[in-house]
Amino acid sequence: MLRQVFQGRFWGYSLSTAFGAVLDNPNLIACCVVGDGEAETGSLATAWHSNKFLNPKTSGAVLPIVHINGYKICNPTVYGTMSDDELLQLFSGYGYEPMIVGALDIEGKMLKSVEAAYQKIRKIQKHARRGGSVIKPRWPVILLKTLKGWKGIKAYHGHPIEGSFHAHGIPIGHPNDDPDALPAIKKWLESYKIGELLDMKGRPYEEVLEFVPSGKYRIGMNKHAVGGNFHKSLKLPNVAKYEVKFKKRGEIATGSMGIGARFLRDIVRGNKDNFRLFCPDEAESNKLGALFEATKRAYVWPTKKTDEDMAPDGRVMEMLSENTLQGWLQGYLLTGRHGVLVSYEAFLTIIASMVDQYAKFLKQSFEVSWRKPIGSAIYLLSSLGWRQDHNGYSHQNPSFVSNVLLKHGKFSQIYYPADANSLLVAFEETMKRKNSICVIVGGKTDLPVWQTLKEAREQAKIGIGLWEWVGGKEASKNPDVVLASAGDYLTQEALNAVKLCHDLAPELKIRYVNVSELTSLGLGDYCSDPKSCLTEDGVNAYFTKNKPVIFNYHGYVNDIEQVLWPYTNSDRFVLHGYKEEGSTTTPFDLKVRNGVSCYHLAMDMIDRGAESNREVARKKMSIKKMLNDKIAAHQAYIRHYGDDPEEIKSLRW
Amino acid sequence: MLRQVFQGRFWGYSLSTAFGAVLDNPNLIACCVVGDGEAETGSLATAWHSNKFLNPKTSGAVLPIVHINGYKICNPTVYGTMSDDELLQLFSGYGYEPMIVGALDIEGKMLKSVEAAYQKIRKIQKHARRGGSVIKPRWPVILLKTLKGWKGIKAYHGHPIEGSFHAHGIPIGHPNDDPDALPAIKKWLESYKIGELLDMKGRPYEEVLEFVPSGKYRIGMNKHAVGGNFHKSLKLPNVAKYEVKFKKRGEIATGSMGIGARFLRDIVRGNKDNFRLFCPDEAESNKLGALFEATKRAYVWPTKKTDEDMAPDGRVMEMLSENTLQGWLQGYLLTGRHGVLVSYEAFLTIIASMVDQYAKFLKQSFEVSWRKPIGSAIYLLSSLGWRQDHNGYSHQNPSFVSNVLLKHGKFSQIYYPADANSLLVAFEETMKRKNSICVIVGGKTDLPVWQTLKEAREQAKIGIGLWEWVGGKEASKNPDVVLASAGDYLTQEALNAVKLCHDLAPELKIRYVNVSELTSLGLGDYCSDPKSCLTEDGVNAYFTKNKPVIFNYHGYVNDIEQVLWPYTNSDRFVLHGYKEEGSTTTPFDLKVRNGVSCYHLAMDMIDRGAESNREVARKKMSIKKMLNDKIAAHQAYIRHYGDDPEEIKSLRW
Repeated sequence: MLRQVFQGRFWGYSLSTAFGAVLDNPNLIACCVVGDGEAETGSLATAWHSNKFLNPKTSGAVLPIVHINGYKICNPTVYGTMSDDELLQLFSGYGYEPMIVGALDIEGKMLKSVEAAYQKIRKIQKHARRGGSVIKPRWPVILLKTLKGWKGIKAYHGHPIEGSFHAHGIPIGHPNDDPDALPAIKKWLESYKIGELLDMKGRPYEEVLEFVPSGKYRIGMNKHAVGGNFHKSLKLPNVAKYEVKFKKRGEIATGSMGIGARFLRDIVRGNKDNFRLFCPDEAESNKLGALFEATKRAYVWPTKKTDEDMAPDGRVMEMLSENTLQGWLQGYLLTGRHGVLVSYEAFLTIIASMVDQYAKFLKQSFEVSWRKPIGSAIYLLSSLGWRQDHNGYSHQNPSFVSNVLLKHGKFSQIYYPADANSLLVAFEETMKRKNSICVIVGGKTDLPVWQTLKEAREQAKIGIGLWEWVGGKEASKNPDVVLASAGDYLTQEALNAVKLCHDLAPELKIRYVNVSELTSLGLGDYCSDPKSCLTEDGVNAYFTKNKPVIFNYHGYVNDIEQVLWPYTNSDRFVLHGYKEEGSTTTPFDLKVRNGVSCYHLAMDMIDRGAESNREVARKKMSIKKMLNDKIAAHQAYIRHYGDDPEEIKSLRW
Repeated sequence: MLRQVFQGRFWGYSLSTAFGAVLDNPNLIACCVVGDGEAETGSLATAWHSNKFLNPKTSGAVLPIVHINGYKICNPTVYGTMSDDELLQLFSGYGYEPMIVGALDIEGKMLKSVEAAYQKIRKIQKHARRGGSVIKPRWPVILLKTLKGWKGIKAYHGHPIEGSFHAHGIPIGHPNDDPDALPAIKKWLESYKIGELLDMKGRPYEEVLEFVPSGKYRIGMNKHAVGGNFHKSLKLPNVAKYEVKFKKRGEIATGSMGIGARFLRDIVRGNKDNFRLFCPDEAESNKLGALFEATKRAYVWPTKKTDEDMAPDGRVMEMLSENTLQGWLQGYLLTGRHGVLVSYEAFLTIIASMVDQYAKFLKQSFEVSWRKPIGSAIYLLSSLGWRQDHNGYSHQNPSFVSNVLLKHGKFSQIYYPADANSLLVAFEETMKRKNSICVIVGGKTDLPVWQTLKEAREQAKIGIGLWEWVGGKEASKNPDVVLASAGDYLTQEALNAVKLCHDLAPELKIRYVNVSELTSLGLGDYCSDPKSCLTEDGVNAYFTKNKPVIFNYHGYVNDIEQVLWPYTNSDRFVLHGYKEEGSTTTPFDLKVRNGVSCYHLAMDMIDRGAESNREVARKKMSIKKMLNDKIAAHQAYIRHYGDDPEEIKSLRW
């Protein structure tokens, strides 16, 4: 049974969370009461299809009780106005065996129906667990119809309360001012014969307390549901196995996701029943195909022989509903297991408000003494906006990160691994971390590898790194200009810009800073580890005290503005980022349109570096003209050929 | 027919938008093709219930064609694995008359089914329009089952393409490198007998072009669908009628929503068929009850006689699905009409990613010559987080504004009216504005009225106002400290703080600045009216060049940080706002917990004012001790009585 679900009404959380809780949890039957108001929400409507992903052999079961009392705040509910026939058809269509319990016969029939549902569930489970088919089990659902405000005040001053929306809020408002109100309320409350239950001090009688379970029998202590009590850490393979080794920095180009997928695959292998991936049909598209060397996709409705990698007990759960995925993940985590939600970057804003509710839950849970740590909610965002060459503008939205940044940094981390090795480290960090919301943003296409695993691990401790080898030791120490970036595609442009400047104005002294995590960069006051927090002094140590800083950021620059605001002044910062210039176009053209290309960064560095470096100042006009000409030539080329020029594609560090 | 819907697959937009388009549009039948992948999304799953809100007498109809080709990227779709029986039951349950067209009989049967559906629609409409019942019309829906990649490449190198997920992307990848690929692709493409349609120059033959409609007969020019072509501006009543008149500022306390509701009610009266409100069952709860003097809630499924204010042709559409509401609003706007989406503040983040898609549509539409202006999408956020005394933390989330701030300021406005008169002006502004996304944030409980309608109108021109009467003319001119606020509850605290300072340290010179709109405050470079834009000089004109500024902000301070970043340095700003300290508690206690109370602001003003004012510096310690004692006493009081102390409740300007 679940206690963790709150405000299901608005976020339609309850049902998908219940399904997530019983996955790989064969002894748990989660009875999930769904309000008929809640049932109108999109996230709940689609969660009914969760029955198609649940294996009765190895997982538990959900018994949904749809409580149809017919009303919301002031309106009838949709379910409340549907006929019994319509309701039965709807739930049969979803694949359940619906049973209606009506208001008139509720007392006897409800008990019978719950018993019948339980027997039905056990029958399905026994059949499956004795080796019978697990395909298309017809789970029961109880449709419980009662009056709204049942057994409350029947009517008041001529208008009905019981059985109408007037029972939703406070049934009678002003007992202090309205002389008829107090007797009506008294009569109602006395109807519960509270005197038979409580003594004069308000304490329940002993014979009442005998019915109250204690210790481990309390519903909140169910050993199959309170995850913190039996949380097992993941057995992690040694990431060194997957390291991309190189002789020269930037020489090897590889896709982070392809590398990371091997690590995920081996976690699946080593953690049976303790780890799942949740994804809106994008695991393969996000280049995580290696997963299917170790597991399949979960599905228990009939599939065709041309379908691939489907099995009742697959560890990958793919449904095109981010809302349902979030509920599943949350239920799975809260019952002690581990999970990753993988998505195209642009689509996670769909669940921003659900993740907000989860953040609220986490914050409150820290104040509850018996709640022990659970695994982190890990969001892996790939198929990034910078490489939506075919899908275009609709698939470009980096704002999930912006939403997470609004939450308490204490338990939310945002990782921008610069390359495949840094991604491995981010995976390792987040899989070990407890009680957090961890976002990892990484591209799926080939990108240069800059750091060794050891270097990436060192940087991960503080989320930021001064890469001396980029500008050179001397220049890094006393630069004319600081260049910084966060995000893999943006780091590639930054380093290309340095290379351009080295060629065009070798006398320009550049310090390069790589930002690989956002909450330890800026929201330091929330950081759990005080040593990793940045302060004004910390910011200055990386960005210097007074040199111009050019920052190339993966998402909306608004993120960086709010992260830096408390620690520094804005006038020496030039921020580049995604500015809603989206389209189906070439990768480099998208960067040009948003002003984050190496040409733009080089121009900025020359411009701002010239303020303190006379030699650069002398060359400034001619270099800028040359770079502007390059941009114009590039644009002419892609208009003609629909591809980036070879000069761009062959750029290497 | 709709052309405006894009990426329905991911946001489940298409069906609710189609329903919105046909509202009050009796001659439009919107044929809406829903993909079976799209059908898995939450927003689409719940949109099926739109049939319960559509009056066949006065509105048009939607013919949904659910295209079940069985596959997504790499997975079968949920609908694709359901049996025909399950599908028929599901759609019958939703209240439709489903017709299955199978892959084998498609060519003849599809034509017949569309014709049958059309006749069925016309029959329902004729019946309703001749005075027959409009209750529970059983609209047709066509479930079209085809093979995925139908008539494409059947198989390649032994693996099937047609009828499998391999048909989703590029069926054969590398015709350049793979010698078998080109012949296979050639054979497939030649099967369309393109030579019968095009001449050697690739131009369609004359007899083909004869079938292509021209001018107004083109589908994109449908006169019932292209809103900009027949957009009618709203007839607005004179807002002066609703002005709250006062003798002394702050003396009258009234609920903005109650006042605003009268204006909305009269817009409903004066704009039949051209204006609707969309709301998740919260119109009454948001104190907009006056609406029901003019109209009712739309509903065409049977209701009970105890239900109130329900009618098939009501102008208020209440369903507990923000996703569906957004789709309805969007369809209604895009076909030329006007609408407001009303919600509790915390719930609109649910549709942040849908609103992002709408922002993308708007941006692109400005580049399309034949798209003429349409009405603005107006979001009215009430039942604000600061007054969730009973609902608590789950109902506190001001991040919808943060999401809109990430969009182009050029076409998004965020209004924080300080009082009821300012709300009236914000309504008037947004109802007149075209092609925008307008967010209005206002409380529903009684709050002081500070400005006359004339003053509010003056301020609305630039979205910011220096209220000289707060600190006095002389102090405002040359202050020790600047106090600013945005949001009605936050402005109340700000003015109470000034009053405290006037009593405790009358020598402290305070300038007060009220911020009533966010995009003209900061994102000035996107502003359509250059005169209303703020620049660094503009910011300094309001906030002075170097005096300390205490800013009391309604939402996350992150919003203000990013708004101010380009124009000013952070070191002289102290920002207060919502910092996730939520609970069910008293109104003032919530402000104390988040540090936005008048006591906190007064302490900050004394603290920072003391930097330049010696007299204040002398008193500083004793005043701060006194205010800290007040906070402690307040907290003791509310722990004991569960209510705010009388001293707080009776505070007046």
